[in-house]
Amino acid sequence: MMVSFTLAELSATLDVPVRAGIGSQHDRPADQLIIDGLATLENARPGKLSFLSNPRYSQQLSACQASAVIVHPEMAGATQLPCLLSKSPYVTYAKASQLFAAAVAHQRPRTALQTGIHPSAVVSVDAVIGADVCVGPHVVIEAGARIGAGSYIGAGAYIGSGVSLGVDCVIYANVTVYHDVVMGDRVMVHAGAVLGADGFGFAFDGQRSVKIAQLGSVRIGSDVEIGAGTCIDRGALDDTVIGDGVKIDNQVQIGHNCMVGDHTVICGCTALAGSTRIGRYCVIGGGVGITGHLSITDRVTVSAMSMVTQSITKPGLYSSGTLLQESSIWKRNVVTLGKLSELSRTVRNIKRQLDQTGLPPPGHDYDEH
Amino acid sequence: MMVSFTLAELSATLDVPVRAGIGSQHDRPADQLIIDGLATLENARPGKLSFLSNPRYSQQLSACQASAVIVHPEMAGATQLPCLLSKSPYVTYAKASQLFAAAVAHQRPRTALQTGIHPSAVVSVDAVIGADVCVGPHVVIEAGARIGAGSYIGAGAYIGSGVSLGVDCVIYANVTVYHDVVMGDRVMVHAGAVLGADGFGFAFDGQRSVKIAQLGSVRIGSDVEIGAGTCIDRGALDDTVIGDGVKIDNQVQIGHNCMVGDHTVICGCTALAGSTRIGRYCVIGGGVGITGHLSITDRVTVSAMSMVTQSITKPGLYSSGTLLQESSIWKRNVVTLGKLSELSRTVRNIKRQLDQTGLPPPGHDYDEH
Amino acid sequence: MMVSFTLAELSATLDVPVRAGIGSQHDRPADQLIIDGLATLENARPGKLSFLSNPRYSQQLSACQASAVIVHPEMAGATQLPCLLSKSPYVTYAKASQLFAAAVAHQRPRTALQTGIHPSAVVSVDAVIGADVCVGPHVVIEAGARIGAGSYIGAGAYIGSGVSLGVDCVIYANVTVYHDVVMGDRVMVHAGAVLGADGFGFAFDGQRSVKIAQLGSVRIGSDVEIGAGTCIDRGALDDTVIGDGVKIDNQVQIGHNCMVGDHTVICGCTALAGSTRIGRYCVIGGGVGITGHLSITDRVTVSAMSMVTQSITKPGLYSSGTLLQESSIWKRNVVTLGKLSELSRTVRNIKRQLDQTGLPPPGHDYDEH
Repeated sequence: MMVSFTLAELSATLDVPVRAGIGSQHDRPADQLIIDGLATLENARPGKLSFLSNPRYSQQLSACQASAVIVHPEMAGATQLPCLLSKSPYVTYAKASQLFAAAVAHQRPRTALQTGIHPSAVVSVDAVIGADVCVGPHVVIEAGARIGAGSYIGAGAYIGSGVSLGVDCVIYANVTVYHDVVMGDRVMVHAGAVLGADGFGFAFDGQRSVKIAQLGSVRIGSDVEIGAGTCIDRGALDDTVIGDGVKIDNQVQIGHNCMVGDHTVICGCTALAGSTRIGRYCVIGGGVGITGHLSITDRVTVSAMSMVTQSITKPGLYSSGTLLQESSIWKRNVVTLGKLSELSRTVRNIKRQLDQTGLPPPGHDYDEH
Repeated sequence: MMVSFTLAELSATLDVPVRAGIGSQHDRPADQLIIDGLATLENARPGKLSFLSNPRYSQQLSACQASAVIVHPEMAGATQLPCLLSKSPYVTYAKASQLFAAAVAHQRPRTALQTGIHPSAVVSVDAVIGADVCVGPHVVIEAGARIGAGSYIGAGAYIGSGVSLGVDCVIYANVTVYHDVVMGDRVMVHAGAVLGADGFGFAFDGQRSVKIAQLGSVRIGSDVEIGAGTCIDRGALDDTVIGDGVKIDNQVQIGHNCMVGDHTVICGCTALAGSTRIGRYCVIGGGVGITGHLSITDRVTVSAMSMVTQSITKPGLYSSGTLLQESSIWKRNVVTLGKLSELSRTVRNIKRQLDQTGLPPPGHDYDEH
Repeated sequence: MMVSFTLAELSATLDVPVRAGIGSQHDRPADQLIIDGLATLENARPGKLSFLSNPRYSQQLSACQASAVIVHPEMAGATQLPCLLSKSPYVTYAKASQLFAAAVAHQRPRTALQTGIHPSAVVSVDAVIGADVCVGPHVVIEAGARIGAGSYIGAGAYIGSGVSLGVDCVIYANVTVYHDVVMGDRVMVHAGAVLGADGFGFAFDGQRSVKIAQLGSVRIGSDVEIGAGTCIDRGALDDTVIGDGVKIDNQVQIGHNCMVGDHTVICGCTALAGSTRIGRYCVIGGGVGITGHLSITDRVTVSAMSMVTQSITKPGLYSSGTLLQESSIWKRNVVTLGKLSELSRTVRNIKRQLDQTGLPPPGHDYDEH
């Protein structure tokens, strides 16, 4: 079973022009080329469409065996292959990938493509299920829940009471959504994610931790994707809020009462402690830790594994952490680091001592950077 | 549908006195004020009860629109609103939050409030189910398991053979409890948590990793809360042990044969490697990593994202890691850090060179701290 | 109910010789000693078999109350207890642990030991289920899936369309396997793991993130163990690949298109960003973060919580991070670290100043290491 498009069909659907191949081996009209899949420059074979988005890989173009390639018009001279010319080759590739995904999906027997409620699902009579919804086997949907038209609820997922999903949402298998969580349209939640569990709130009375009931909920915008195993806790009093277009990778932890601005991207294994606000169009790398009650402005990028303990008021690129070294060298450096403040004081004292002696200063300021 | 209490009812239940409001706008007797919810100082509206626990926020008191506020008696002068006077406003707020949570829950149609075994659940005839237990849809309870009275097992949860739960436990949806795990009373386990999976133990024979069967189990005390997606592995030979009153946040990983002392709090995404012992009343911040076979004494606080590679024998506050900087500055510093040991040696040599020359020492020791 | 072996039986099965006990208390022939379990040196009681693998613990031998102990022949002189003599005591212990685990399992009423398909499972007529397979309650197996002979699928697990499992695989409860994931033989996947969710790929078009359909899959070799809550994402175009004998702990995140070489071990909470290649026989500690598109050669060990941002071409032991300190000291050092590049420049200038003055150099190079 094969899925294919002609290059002309792809050109029309993706709204990018074709440039014919150059040289004698391209005797078939480019428009009629049959494309049956996507591939990297390195692994492409005849029949595949590849793409060049990062000029770093332009050397791979010459040896590429794809039938055609998506390139920026300015890079078209670097290849004799037939091209789709796009000012954003990576975006065009993304759109093409969706075409092939949809085509494949329609030929595969998957539960996701059937509508209706599986007889093993337990759906409250007080839930409202929209048109063309698929409710998989062993799903539970509690009273008061509303599932928007075209949505898919995967096997074993739990949808708590009062939950509201917009249209065309995709909830994968074994997801748990606690009561009253609200999602917009086209939200995709991967397997094992947990939305709306209690925020981690306790008041210590001197003897033990007294639980603070988490009376808020979680509100998620539209066009949000949430990765496998990710947890977003419900708010203590107000809601935890995820904006439109936010993309969250796997195993991310978002504490109660956080607010994540529209179109921000959060990579895997990152954790936000409670009540932190992240702006719009931020990119938070993987494994980042952000402590509570901070505010991060729009368009901030934080590199992987950074520790954020103060608010960020200026857009830009931020980092923390130390670089990997052979352990023997690392140990020596890190032991010295443990006495760094002393070292700094020693240097300051030496400098003062020299300043007092009247030695001539060095000829010019030396800086290797 | 509204839930409300009079301020007098709250005063009686929470065991804290009322102080009437000050000024003409408070003509209604404070006792008869109707409180229909809790809110932060910032977002409170009439009808809500707010609280001031951190004096940092005392400025927000003056503009607060709540109908009443929980304050420390010494702070009561800072507001004209009717007050509940508590020496521990945060604990009183916690207890109030539980009142509203229970009230709300009794008015909402939730599975949790119904007792009995859902017909879709698969419960072994050799399991012992206590009185007033709720077993949700698609739950599996294996032979030899014992579920204490008043417990709730959420949809899709798996309770392995020989598992024992005390009374009033709450196991949320899609939790997995492996065989023979033991829990005390009032344990709450959030969705997706996994208790009792095999510890990560292998013996490398030079060619491959030979699995060490994990023959111990997990023992969990009473009044423990375990967050969503958290994993606590079973022991290799002895058990992994979690003390009474321990609170564990989401996505925490606790390796085999760890022991966590009573009333210790572990924040999200923290990981304990195997055989580590943590004392009582510790607070381990989020994203912390603790290597194996360590011992941490009572009342230790470790700040977020710290790396703990040695035992801690003295109570106190500990940290590691580096602070966030703009990446260009960070890079320069971190490259220098990679040569820190050399820098330190250079400074020591300079100091010796100066000491040998007989230059006069600096007038006094300079230290900016 | 007890399980026991004679020491002679263990000797034969584990292929290690017995050395009799020394002294009058060992009047029973060593071969006929009854061993009913394994225990640590510290906690062993009569009837138990213990082991000494790390010479650090050899002091515990003298007080050990086990009935017998697994030791290296060179350590046999350190104890009067009956011994099993093994050149790899830890491997022999591992194999012994499997004996006791299997014995225990056969006496316990567990679902895992029954074959057949539970009536509550939803198995597609187009799935192929091998001989002696156990499909637990509430499992879902989609069309085109193939489950190899002797495999066990735990309660609530989801096996997507086209998934292929080899023989004797063990999939614990509430695991989710997305469509077309392929596993070899004897793969064990712990509860809550998610295999084959979409890789985290988006093309930013200036306004929003356009999803890149993840058209690859995940290929997992034989004899692989995957921990609870671990996520391995499917590839964008090519597959994500996990080699034979790889052992992955809990809550590990493996991004799309990563390749992990045979027999590599990855400890808990570690994250690999996309397209990174790890060699064979590596050991990646817990909480490590590895950024994308790197290549790590064979036999590399990375210590816990390290940040890997560059490829590693030489086998060895690598680390990053900073050591834990009391927070007041840490703060001082870490603030200085934020100005480390300046400090280094100051030192270089001082050195130049001294070199220009003609002061005599220090008598010898001083280095405390």
